Amino acid sequence: MQQAIGKQSIAFEKPPTIEVYASIAGKKEGEGPLGRGFDYIEEDDYFGADTWEGAESALQTRLLAKVMEKGKVKAKDIRYVFAGDLLGQDIATSFGVMDFQIPLFGIYGACSTAGEALGLGAMTVAAGYAKKVACLTSSHFASAERQFRYPLEYAGQRPVSATWTVTGGGAYLLSDNPGKIKITGITTGCIYDYGVKDSMNMGAAMAPAAAALIKANLSDFNRSPGDYDRIVTGDLGLVGKTLLLELLQRDGIAIEKQHEDCGIMIFDNEKQETGSGGSGCGCAASTLAAHFLPKIESGEYKRILFVPTGALLSPVSFNEGNSVPGIAHGVVIETAEEL
Amino acid sequence: MQQAIGKQSIAFEKPPTIEVYASIAGKKEGEGPLGRGFDYIEEDDYFGADTWEGAESALQTRLLAKVMEKGKVKAKDIRYVFAGDLLGQDIATSFGVMDFQIPLFGIYGACSTAGEALGLGAMTVAAGYAKKVACLTSSHFASAERQFRYPLEYAGQRPVSATWTVTGGGAYLLSDNPGKIKITGITTGCIYDYGVKDSMNMGAAMAPAAAALIKANLSDFNRSPGDYDRIVTGDLGLVGKTLLLELLQRDGIAIEKQHEDCGIMIFDNEKQETGSGGSGCGCAASTLAAHFLPKIESGEYKRILFVPTGALLSPVSFNEGNSVPGIAHGVVIETAEEL
Repeated sequence: MQQAIGKQSIAFEKPPTIEVYASIAGKKEGEGPLGRGFDYIEEDDYFGADTWEGAESALQTRLLAKVMEKGKVKAKDIRYVFAGDLLGQDIATSFGVMDFQIPLFGIYGACSTAGEALGLGAMTVAAGYAKKVACLTSSHFASAERQFRYPLEYAGQRPVSATWTVTGGGAYLLSDNPGKIKITGITTGCIYDYGVKDSMNMGAAMAPAAAALIKANLSDFNRSPGDYDRIVTGDLGLVGKTLLLELLQRDGIAIEKQHEDCGIMIFDNEKQETGSGGSGCGCAASTLAAHFLPKIESGEYKRILFVPTGALLSPVSFNEGNSVPGIAHGVVIETAEEL
Repeated sequence: MQQAIGKQSIAFEKPPTIEVYASIAGKKEGEGPLGRGFDYIEEDDYFGADTWEGAESALQTRLLAKVMEKGKVKAKDIRYVFAGDLLGQDIATSFGVMDFQIPLFGIYGACSTAGEALGLGAMTVAAGYAKKVACLTSSHFASAERQFRYPLEYAGQRPVSATWTVTGGGAYLLSDNPGKIKITGITTGCIYDYGVKDSMNMGAAMAPAAAALIKANLSDFNRSPGDYDRIVTGDLGLVGKTLLLELLQRDGIAIEKQHEDCGIMIFDNEKQETGSGGSGCGCAASTLAAHFLPKIESGEYKRILFVPTGALLSPVSFNEGNSVPGIAHGVVIETAEEL
């Protein structure tokens, strides 16, 4: 039990390595501030498929292939895949990864999925159950709009608090080999429900879960915000960021200097008209791979806390008048000490 | 790596204990052959809620409360919950478990969810990350009909190959304490797609995944079917069972003597007019808790292989003309050796 610390964290005795990572983005994301960081940018919104859901599956297929190519591994070398997406019944993942024939743990954490996948993947490698596992997740603007809001053909208007679902994704190959990027710990989140009922303001729904997660992480690891070079939330957007900082301030925790939000970083909001910012599983996942991991690999950042957040709604729960509860999962990523 | 065996299995060095377990069933399930085994039978289809989805969440709330009551533990004693359900975005789970404030790993494995949850839960306890975790899953006839087929008000007719989604669920408290029931190994499944496009014949869609999983388990553990007292599939039903036995027969594997299917056991098909049998996450989960675990606890069965299977479709993927791929997850459950 010495690896379990505090109320909801694990500090790995043998931190697994993020050996390689890959990101894919859509055209609009490619035109944003992070454009040059993505492994590649797909100009075809359909990714060569016939449907939006098929497009997202194709995105996951290419992501997994890309990370395998970069890691110079074959499917048989990967013991497990931990993957999920935003769509009902995780279909982007099921149809996206099935041809690889790798044992699959399908997960659902809404936009916190990248954190959940990295957490379970790291636990699996650190315990010695696997030498290599792959973690991946994605989102697609058009499949998410159809699932959660309106079909694109409806041309519905969007309030400024609404976020823009990112077309993109990130994949990570975790292993027990030495390497420059280590997952040294995780903090697993509980669900928080502040009674937000506006599916166009998911940043507000998720901010309480992010605040609670960051607070728990700092407490469990006995750290202050300054012990992290960056504290990175997934897709709170401009509205959610303000709320997060306020909530933590009430507890005397100031993270202004360390905080960045992938949803704010991935688009140039004013030029690209993306409302409160980017969102979706693919937002945090692709930003981690395109922006943060290279900076950890180079040693520019020594330690970050990655906290993607998820809004746990479905079209059914929302239309039945339920609130939108939130969850967040934290991953501590560091430059390897031995370097 | 000594715990990882064969291509896709783990043999636990320190097998975790299923300390207590609980099951809840609906009225129709309560009138079936396993009726006396359930912890309790709810006569109100709505479980006191206003919607079918709310009913399933209430079912999960009660399940988790029941297993905690039986285990004499409080929420703070449980390090993680591994849970999921059939509904889009896992809403039965999110709304069902959120008030307990236990760190959550949300999973999606369709009707294989009980196997996936027990697998991840056992990995977590056996590695020393947690002293106690809870695993649970559910399904509800009316929420599943609305999600996957037609609203009940439509009164659609059902072909005989169709299964009947079970209203019920199972929960398990895993720990590192000594106990009578041990999870000694797991086999994690890949996705198999045989091109079945009939959502009213899910047994056929899932049978290939079950056959592959059983074959992999026997190979990885170097066992023959006779090494298990029972090989238990989740919800193949009558149609799927026939196909499973045929597929394994082609590889020279005969499991007729050991095989039982929870979907066939849970209803009296002729009297209760349940088509090909029961289905849903709650079918395998409640049958394991109501029927099989008591027999392992008493020593009547020394070792079983529990193989719930999932059909990885969504209303969207199905209506877009996609096939129904299947997945299965295996859990080896044994009477403790020390007894």
